[in-house]
Amino acid sequence: MKKIINDPSNVVPEMVSGLVRSYPKILKRIPGTEAVVRADELSMTGKVGVISGGGSGHEPTHAGFVGKGMLSAAICGQVFTSPTPDQIYEAIKTVDQGKGVFMVVKNYSGDVMNFDMAKDLAEMDGIKVKSIVVDDDIAVENSLYTQGKRGVAGTIFMHKILGAAAQEGASLDELDELAKKVLPHINTIAVALSAATVPEVGKPGFNLPEDEIEFGVGIHSEPGYRREKIKPSRELCEELLSKIDESMQLDSEKKYALLINGMGATPLMEQYVFSNDVLDWLEKKNITPSFIKVGNYMTSIDMAGISVTLLELADEKWLDYLNKPVETIAW
Amino acid sequence: MKKIINDPSNVVPEMVSGLVRSYPKILKRIPGTEAVVRADELSMTGKVGVISGGGSGHEPTHAGFVGKGMLSAAICGQVFTSPTPDQIYEAIKTVDQGKGVFMVVKNYSGDVMNFDMAKDLAEMDGIKVKSIVVDDDIAVENSLYTQGKRGVAGTIFMHKILGAAAQEGASLDELDELAKKVLPHINTIAVALSAATVPEVGKPGFNLPEDEIEFGVGIHSEPGYRREKIKPSRELCEELLSKIDESMQLDSEKKYALLINGMGATPLMEQYVFSNDVLDWLEKKNITPSFIKVGNYMTSIDMAGISVTLLELADEKWLDYLNKPVETIAW
Repeated sequence: MKKIINDPSNVVPEMVSGLVRSYPKILKRIPGTEAVVRADELSMTGKVGVISGGGSGHEPTHAGFVGKGMLSAAICGQVFTSPTPDQIYEAIKTVDQGKGVFMVVKNYSGDVMNFDMAKDLAEMDGIKVKSIVVDDDIAVENSLYTQGKRGVAGTIFMHKILGAAAQEGASLDELDELAKKVLPHINTIAVALSAATVPEVGKPGFNLPEDEIEFGVGIHSEPGYRREKIKPSRELCEELLSKIDESMQLDSEKKYALLINGMGATPLMEQYVFSNDVLDWLEKKNITPSFIKVGNYMTSIDMAGISVTLLELADEKWLDYLNKPVETIAW
Repeated sequence: MKKIINDPSNVVPEMVSGLVRSYPKILKRIPGTEAVVRADELSMTGKVGVISGGGSGHEPTHAGFVGKGMLSAAICGQVFTSPTPDQIYEAIKTVDQGKGVFMVVKNYSGDVMNFDMAKDLAEMDGIKVKSIVVDDDIAVENSLYTQGKRGVAGTIFMHKILGAAAQEGASLDELDELAKKVLPHINTIAVALSAATVPEVGKPGFNLPEDEIEFGVGIHSEPGYRREKIKPSRELCEELLSKIDESMQLDSEKKYALLINGMGATPLMEQYVFSNDVLDWLEKKNITPSFIKVGNYMTSIDMAGISVTLLELADEKWLDYLNKPVETIAW
């Protein structure tokens, strides 16, 4: 393992420290935790708080999306490990303005359990808490760490839409309703060229032969659905978009947001080549996405690979929310 | 070689196509070239054009910095290969508003020659052109492809400062003077954990044993100055910052901008850990940078490694320029 770290067991505190010290105008640490909150706390005044979090290793997720117009706070767990309930509870208390707090949770058993326990703790303090469990990965049902589908890169769209709505003054119930409406319209699928190496483990989560790829791998190196020899980008695109099409029945009469997401070690060069193929593929179906992002948003440490997310913009307002300006590190 | 591409010889056109199609509100292609210009051409009205470019493989450089407040256009050469004079010439013609065009060139022999030839062509058309050759890499004098020092990640600071000044209405002569003042204050140095693989070559530019790193490597895998066993982040930091200190004599009475730059395959997790160590090191010298960025800005395809840049803010105005808002993909 060759990594730019000090002690493998101390990666998360040092990372959070580097993050808040590098961006003091945007983030600050919640004392005694590995959670970060907006430095501009006034931007949260009178608003419902929107928080998210999960295991570290997916940077810039989640802390990179904390800031005016998006998340209020993010809780950084150990690498690929859910944050503890007490830290989530601290984040809830920190962002609550008396209007309640909405939690965006990715569908992993540990996350679901710990965010639920934090919710219970907060409710005992009289803080209203609601949540959505994002399960956008269409590759497989159930998985390591997961009942049902996994929550992956499409979660970013949930952060942005809810964050924009909260900034505009949406109530906790309105956010809850919005989140439930958006959720079934997010569809993500990935292909991996290599696995991630967790610092404390010291070796990749799985081994792929030098000429093989795996479709449907999760963001913690969970198994996908098929291994094959490496293929040209447009054939990878064909495989992944066909799966998305099966899942959500793409329709040229509808509007879509597209996210092409690098998994950590995939150069932007390759991400743009792949985007070109995705846009070609969609064009053949007479679809031009209304909103597009390409880059490293929900990574898996040093995994090489890419994911594609399509969100059907079933409500025109969602596109406005995606386009609203934010003050974050990474959106 | 495992990459998400189609034909290795067609990577750049497909990448540029993916880029402009993904961000149509920010970029458009200059017809018949692999160069991109601001989609919002009105933002350039009456301003001096600021262009840059070079070999591809450093994404998001340079196209990611095209947009209101930063570059007017960027020319994408073949991978690790200077763009041709005719393409640079097209970019000059496209952005010229009668006020002249300023070119930011990184110090590589091919780039210097081709940008000069394009300048000659443009001047025959009566377009005024000036330029700066950035040579911020303090690791080595002369190198493969370079007379003198190499131009690397610190070039981004030059793009931002000149872009902001041009947007405010600075004249060509004022930009020229500004660029010359800023240049000697930019100091960059890198460490590589692995080399980049150029798609058409198919194998890494050099081989490092599994437990070794190389200090001072260039962004095209040019040799550095020393190989060692992998060390903890804070020892890498000590080595690199000491070299920068030797070069520019850091002084707690002065102000600095800091750029921590991932080389393409380095996870943000490691970049933030390294940032924490850099900020610790500077703090011992009573220096807190006035401006900080951490991320993948000047990459080397899939190289694992990191660079650190310090810019002495010898003029308070430069910090204003760095802080001005932009409409780009990657700043």
